[in-house]
Amino acid sequence: MTSSSVPSLLLTGFEPFGGETLNPSWETARALDGELLEGVRVRAWQLPCVFGAALRSLDQALAAHSPLLVLALGQASGRCDLSLERVAINVDDARIPDNAGAQPVDEPVLATGPAAYFSTLPIKAMVAGLRAAGIPASVSQTAGTFVCNHVFYGLQHRLAGSAVRSGFMHIPPLPEQAARFPGQPSLPLSTLVEGTRLALSLALRTQEDVREQGGAIA
Amino acid sequence: MTSSSVPSLLLTGFEPFGGETLNPSWETARALDGELLEGVRVRAWQLPCVFGAALRSLDQALAAHSPLLVLALGQASGRCDLSLERVAINVDDARIPDNAGAQPVDEPVLATGPAAYFSTLPIKAMVAGLRAAGIPASVSQTAGTFVCNHVFYGLQHRLAGSAVRSGFMHIPPLPEQAARFPGQPSLPLSTLVEGTRLALSLALRTQEDVREQGGAIA
Amino acid sequence: MTSSSVPSLLLTGFEPFGGETLNPSWETARALDGELLEGVRVRAWQLPCVFGAALRSLDQALAAHSPLLVLALGQASGRCDLSLERVAINVDDARIPDNAGAQPVDEPVLATGPAAYFSTLPIKAMVAGLRAAGIPASVSQTAGTFVCNHVFYGLQHRLAGSAVRSGFMHIPPLPEQAARFPGQPSLPLSTLVEGTRLALSLALRTQEDVREQGGAIA
Amino acid sequence: MTSSSVPSLLLTGFEPFGGETLNPSWETARALDGELLEGVRVRAWQLPCVFGAALRSLDQALAAHSPLLVLALGQASGRCDLSLERVAINVDDARIPDNAGAQPVDEPVLATGPAAYFSTLPIKAMVAGLRAAGIPASVSQTAGTFVCNHVFYGLQHRLAGSAVRSGFMHIPPLPEQAARFPGQPSLPLSTLVEGTRLALSLALRTQEDVREQGGAIA
Repeated sequence: MTSSSVPSLLLTGFEPFGGETLNPSWETARALDGELLEGVRVRAWQLPCVFGAALRSLDQALAAHSPLLVLALGQASGRCDLSLERVAINVDDARIPDNAGAQPVDEPVLATGPAAYFSTLPIKAMVAGLRAAGIPASVSQTAGTFVCNHVFYGLQHRLAGSAVRSGFMHIPPLPEQAARFPGQPSLPLSTLVEGTRLALSLALRTQEDVREQGGAIA
Repeated sequence: MTSSSVPSLLLTGFEPFGGETLNPSWETARALDGELLEGVRVRAWQLPCVFGAALRSLDQALAAHSPLLVLALGQASGRCDLSLERVAINVDDARIPDNAGAQPVDEPVLATGPAAYFSTLPIKAMVAGLRAAGIPASVSQTAGTFVCNHVFYGLQHRLAGSAVRSGFMHIPPLPEQAARFPGQPSLPLSTLVEGTRLALSLALRTQEDVREQGGAIA
Repeated sequence: MTSSSVPSLLLTGFEPFGGETLNPSWETARALDGELLEGVRVRAWQLPCVFGAALRSLDQALAAHSPLLVLALGQASGRCDLSLERVAINVDDARIPDNAGAQPVDEPVLATGPAAYFSTLPIKAMVAGLRAAGIPASVSQTAGTFVCNHVFYGLQHRLAGSAVRSGFMHIPPLPEQAARFPGQPSLPLSTLVEGTRLALSLALRTQEDVREQGGAIA
Repeated sequence: MTSSSVPSLLLTGFEPFGGETLNPSWETARALDGELLEGVRVRAWQLPCVFGAALRSLDQALAAHSPLLVLALGQASGRCDLSLERVAINVDDARIPDNAGAQPVDEPVLATGPAAYFSTLPIKAMVAGLRAAGIPASVSQTAGTFVCNHVFYGLQHRLAGSAVRSGFMHIPPLPEQAARFPGQPSLPLSTLVEGTRLALSLALRTQEDVREQGGAIA
């Protein structure tokens, strides 16, 4: 059996940003690289934390691996669990510069694109399955307006109308990051890897998402 | 000059919900009812906190007043300032029942509608102007998935492509509400009224929004 | 009747610190200066935000007014209500320099003093009365380790064993401060003044505090 | 060499409370039971989450093990790191009933005791050492007013004036607890065990605490 006969899923993580020396999203992705989940090979790919360049790198990854499912990971300081993002919006509004020094304000990700795309992953089933396994998880109603949302929007746009399901999950910083910047929640790499592995398996196994509330009042 | 010759703006607020006996959004709207701002008459309208029925009531308000601008207000427990919402998404996902007992989960606001609509108000200029006047304000990236977002989405859909600008602003509870449910931020009605009056004036006076960052990393 | 025949209470506030240009604790105190509450005259006094010097200024205030009750006020960023402090501890541990540039670390307020003093004000009755009047309020288990706690400890030490009751109340920033440093709760001066006036009246009227839980699990 | 010739340290944890089926403080303590740290044997002991009875159990533990150092652990929902408590106060004020149904309000832990006791552990050195090792940690200015503070106060009272150093450390819930009660920070048992082992070693190795700020403004 050649490697090309095994279907693959793409798991992206970001390079460090904001003065950090590591990014838990990439640490998690590369820890899972090559694993076989539900008969599908995990392919990890690192994205630059740069508007525009991140999407060009994503294009390369999609071309290289022709994945049947894509999960993009990103670090979210201040969050305490694995956050399955519901929606990507067509706006870049950077509170800090990206790694190339760009700081777009109220520019569209794609000038001709729709206002938003929803995740096509079964996010409610993923949250329910993670919680059942003892991994803190929740649905998030916003992926922000920085490079994470930019990649999420670009990803959903590229795969809109295709059979390839895709989405974005934010994860907390690592304890070693929280030790340097006290006062924020964290989870160690072992929990992030275990949770992401399960999230991917749940996504692969679930065709129709469950109807379980995961909303916010405001 | 007859009253019909004075242009009007529509300012909506909600009836109480979630066991409360008042709603600061309606208290604020009715306090401003009839005021003349920048030559425009404020018309306050109360919406039921009910999926569907809120949009039928909104239709009546739009027909009755033919406003040149619409601002919908809603209460947001846990927020500490006047939050100008950036985007409405096409989903109802109710964490608690609405005032008619309905609790939709992952249903579209409008089956054939786009994924989202952006506010057409100059939200950055409004935030900047409020802050300059000493009123705490910020841009919010999510209006939730309850009746507030439902109304915001329905409002933007109704006015899409028209010259009527519209949007949504969340406001904190009143101190008397926070006194009964301790631990949450609040602002008194006088601040909410002053801030909303200024927000409306800023919206009327500003044709082109300013470019000022108001984003979130995640 | 001479002015000296009217008993007085001392209400202290701090000068601005941490780069701010005003301090809501002093704005509140001076707004109440001279008022007659329950037959008692309010005497406002401004304290420097300086370790040591604040207590020397407090000594002058006590000597000048011979008050029958003392309430010290201080600003607490991040808090959303009027916080009645339960306990002052015998430690100075400054996260930032005081207004004279001193930054003591783990030094006692008073080398020979006990580890802590409790408030001698009826804090539970004050919280209950404030909430009943629609003013957000709570009991706080820590006044921090900066100049606020320093003054609170020094105050309680000076009046220990006397008939003069005393304590400390933290208050949130003003909206105009929160407008410059977004993301924190605030209350306007009118609410702070109304709440402090009521807190003082409740303290004067209540001899025996009520038994009502106001604790924290951790 | 008999076992009695090896000095011991006492590490206490609590039984579950508040409807939980496990308590990370006991899971952590028992995981370290029997380990030899810096030549000192760890003795784990479970305390009931009951006012009064917890201190009687603590007396038994002290008598059984004659430890040269004591660290009491407790769960703190809402905290994100290992919190070294600075001070125990002489008050029981229970927001919820303890495991025997008692809910004391504003009662002293010890009628004749001082207002507070400080930790006699080198808490600044412990926080610094934990952070240097990548474990999130901080100094806390309040241990609350529930059974945790009750045990901390009783512990410090029993050992006041002795050569046995003692203190209290709050730890976050486990991820499996946060998965059932979403929205709160957590750390897995492996991190809690590693962090507590290091905290104990640091306490054993450090005679004089470092001077490093760990205060709070309010």
